[in-house]
Amino acid sequence: MSGVLTIEAIRASASRIAGAVVRTPVVRSERLDDLVGTQVLLKAENLQRVGAFKMRGATNAVRVMLEAGERPRGVVAFSSGNHAQAVALAAREHGLPAVILMPEDAPPEKRAATEAYGAEVRVFDRAAHDRAEMAEEVVRETGFALIPPYDDARVMAGQGTAALELFEDAGPLDALMVPIGGGGLIAGCAVAAAAVAPDCRVIGAEPDASGDSMRSLDAGTWQGEPSGPTIADGQQAPQGQLTFEVMRGLVERSVVVSDDDIAAAMRALFERAKLVAEPSGACGLAGLLRHAHDLGLAGARVGVVISGGNVAPERFAAITGSGTSAQELSTHRPIPKL
Amino acid sequence: MSGVLTIEAIRASASRIAGAVVRTPVVRSERLDDLVGTQVLLKAENLQRVGAFKMRGATNAVRVMLEAGERPRGVVAFSSGNHAQAVALAAREHGLPAVILMPEDAPPEKRAATEAYGAEVRVFDRAAHDRAEMAEEVVRETGFALIPPYDDARVMAGQGTAALELFEDAGPLDALMVPIGGGGLIAGCAVAAAAVAPDCRVIGAEPDASGDSMRSLDAGTWQGEPSGPTIADGQQAPQGQLTFEVMRGLVERSVVVSDDDIAAAMRALFERAKLVAEPSGACGLAGLLRHAHDLGLAGARVGVVISGGNVAPERFAAITGSGTSAQELSTHRPIPKL
Repeated sequence: MSGVLTIEAIRASASRIAGAVVRTPVVRSERLDDLVGTQVLLKAENLQRVGAFKMRGATNAVRVMLEAGERPRGVVAFSSGNHAQAVALAAREHGLPAVILMPEDAPPEKRAATEAYGAEVRVFDRAAHDRAEMAEEVVRETGFALIPPYDDARVMAGQGTAALELFEDAGPLDALMVPIGGGGLIAGCAVAAAAVAPDCRVIGAEPDASGDSMRSLDAGTWQGEPSGPTIADGQQAPQGQLTFEVMRGLVERSVVVSDDDIAAAMRALFERAKLVAEPSGACGLAGLLRHAHDLGLAGARVGVVISGGNVAPERFAAITGSGTSAQELSTHRPIPKL
Repeated sequence: MSGVLTIEAIRASASRIAGAVVRTPVVRSERLDDLVGTQVLLKAENLQRVGAFKMRGATNAVRVMLEAGERPRGVVAFSSGNHAQAVALAAREHGLPAVILMPEDAPPEKRAATEAYGAEVRVFDRAAHDRAEMAEEVVRETGFALIPPYDDARVMAGQGTAALELFEDAGPLDALMVPIGGGGLIAGCAVAAAAVAPDCRVIGAEPDASGDSMRSLDAGTWQGEPSGPTIADGQQAPQGQLTFEVMRGLVERSVVVSDDDIAAAMRALFERAKLVAEPSGACGLAGLLRHAHDLGLAGARVGVVISGGNVAPERFAAITGSGTSAQELSTHRPIPKL
């Protein structure tokens, strides 16, 4: 769907957001390679501003409006987490007020961070309200401009800059594993890959409670639906219709993983790569850990986007089962005199 | 003490080890800056190979021997952790066997990693044996060459390359905070700073159970002694005599922090910078968090070496108090349907 998103748009986005986002490092770990059975090149978007790739798309969307002379009175977004923080910070940096709609069950650390970036957070009940309708209402009330979380060409173009950087910094890759929530990240990355690394396979990863992108890609038609319960709070959104149009034909397939697979990937990143990843952030690695063999990737050189790191230590410990009892604490804490 | 360690030796080391060590990224976090009250530029040596800066000095020491045509039959090291892993890996990469003496109370994850890198680990009881004597015995028995953990010009030169990179990548700094165990890292960094960033203050940080470097620097004479009990297992070694000779006159002072300060710094790195640091690894940040005001560093631009990340998730949870009960787990784990 070159009409919706082109490599030129991604390149323009890269120039537009340079300096306002971090060129995140590619992190490697021999012990991670040993565990996975492939070479693993981690694009550490957990080290991005606001702790997630979302800063790329949000910044691009704001700057596209300002460049076009469409200075909005403010911006509105709906998000359970990282897009919220990204829009809040991008708005503040460009002198715009922001209203963010967050579901009441969003992780408290994500809500606190969104408020810390200066946004007005309005909480809604997922069961009782449709978030898109609520956002429309805020737009009507305030005259602010909506920045959608993924079904938006400006947002996808921004997210695709992560893959552009990875291909520049990591050299040739056999495959690229990307977590899929609504699909903005993988859509942007797939267009970038098709242009600059056409031999690189692009593969998505989703929690098995979701899998709508897998079904959409397998069927060749959009099958978007919201996720069932999963620890991967960043991947509960339905596959976007626009993101699906962009990724169709470019993304080979999407694989699903269990919450336990995601927990194992979070632990592996902590222990072996010294990186904190939130559940959605680790889903690409979980997909590779679980499916490297079926995907024919044993020994291959694989890029993996670690898409975010916004998880509280308590939630991390609960998910990975590394919380300790008082007894363990007493044996771990003091270390005998040298 | 330019006789012991010169900037030329550090620059030569940088060339010698290039490609065998990671040029680690400088990581920033606005939310960390807000917490600390300074600009913080993290030199992320936890993302170094083997998870710690020690890979620099170990690789340099091995390559200096090989360059000089002194190919040893193998190498020996004594270490409770990261130097052990670094010597094990550096030896394996150069086709040399390694024997590593580790105390029986070394963190199990560090021992397992050392064995995974192919070294023979010999365990000793700190109370019953002197590790330096034991190492001499192994040297006599095997004919292997000893690579000391810090009191060695080759090792200090290697460690100093971390600061060279930081000054190149981070631009001007008002101060550099460096954890001190035996002092190899700060000695190398101080010589690098004096040469390439002479206006940058170099300040050490130690657990308050140690503080022998603080006392040595305050007194102007070597006061080395082993640490009392602390969670900072990488900083239990006594201040080295050679490292003290090098750092004297170049390191402004060393500050001490409590184990609770270290735990707070580990948590801050997790939550705000998405980095896993072991206790010793976080000690420089702990020093800055605790002492930024007394040191006159409010608002300053401060480099902080995060020296290592080798801590098991269980130990991390115990130290930071983020282990959760079964009840918390049930509220954290599944997230309601969108």
